Amino acid sequence: MSKIVTGATMSLDGYIAGPGESGFDLLFQWYGNGDVEIPSASPDVPPIRVSAASAGLVKPEWESTGALVVGRYLYDMTNAWGGRHPMDVTTVVLTHQRPDDRPEDDENFVFVTEGIEAAVTRAKEVAGDKNVVVNGGQMARQCLEAGLLDEVGVELVPVVLGGGKTLFGELGATPVEFEGPVAVVEGTGVTHLRYRVKK
Amino acid sequence: MSKIVTGATMSLDGYIAGPGESGFDLLFQWYGNGDVEIPSASPDVPPIRVSAASAGLVKPEWESTGALVVGRYLYDMTNAWGGRHPMDVTTVVLTHQRPDDRPEDDENFVFVTEGIEAAVTRAKEVAGDKNVVVNGGQMARQCLEAGLLDEVGVELVPVVLGGGKTLFGELGATPVEFEGPVAVVEGTGVTHLRYRVKK
Repeated sequence: MSKIVTGATMSLDGYIAGPGESGFDLLFQWYGNGDVEIPSASPDVPPIRVSAASAGLVKPEWESTGALVVGRYLYDMTNAWGGRHPMDVTTVVLTHQRPDDRPEDDENFVFVTEGIEAAVTRAKEVAGDKNVVVNGGQMARQCLEAGLLDEVGVELVPVVLGGGKTLFGELGATPVEFEGPVAVVEGTGVTHLRYRVKK
Repeated sequence: MSKIVTGATMSLDGYIAGPGESGFDLLFQWYGNGDVEIPSASPDVPPIRVSAASAGLVKPEWESTGALVVGRYLYDMTNAWGGRHPMDVTTVVLTHQRPDDRPEDDENFVFVTEGIEAAVTRAKEVAGDKNVVVNGGQMARQCLEAGLLDEVGVELVPVVLGGGKTLFGELGATPVEFEGPVAVVEGTGVTHLRYRVKK
């Protein structure tokens, strides 16, 4: 059955971005420290090369993803990944106003202005039997708060950043308990952990 | 050889205490959800009962500990653990002023006022061939900043607290890279991870 999942690469002290959007080189070392290439559908983003252990978990996860939900911040920051998301799926962008340079929704991007539930519903329609991946801390937070989230994945890396953005940001209704980890995979320079949201 | 180690139980979003010192019931569920009892030398702190997997890692770690270093905050907050630390070792307390109710250093508590390096040096003398465990985020931070720390252990639990105190607090010189995890052990409701400080 289709699941709603989110994931993030996180420092040992809980940050998905360091102070002033720093630390990405250290957080994402595992994207380039292995031999197994996972292709990218984005003209702007090179394929990642991860360890066999990481690929064994991440590749099937990517292949079982049918649509993405991201916020406008990530869409703008990445310059729309050059036109197509690396994971090669339709990306639903939650935004207050659709961008002027994209007159129509297409197979690459769909714009939703009515809030997180509408964005996830739209993504589920696109995904069919496959999963919906929600990306960006603010989107993940809204999704968790709305009771829509099924699973969270943490790629824990051995670096301390000392500050920055946390996994779910300023989450309103805390604490939130999870089940698991339902999977623990040790990659090179990264520990992949998967948890289910308790419902 | 004697090592300087620190460790903390941490939420999935990186907090070792929730907002307003909350969340300890959720963070420390793993202290009571198993069948293997680890005794406590403190008259105020009951023995913990952890899963066999957790005990297999934690018990030898406790047994290889020869002394503790803690801050005055933890010493006061726990009311000096009723007179003796649960781990049954001498506890070196870093403080600005020694407490009035303890006229002499004894086998339970040693008070050091000259800073973290002096506290760790004193603890190493007490520990001999055994390890020194440094407890409390501020002490761990000072120890890491002073280049004294060898290892850090994270007991990662599946709860999101949304705010609070982070593993190393407001660490000055970041980022800091670690090696590992050198150990990953899956307990019940907790994932034990061990890392070495890169030197």
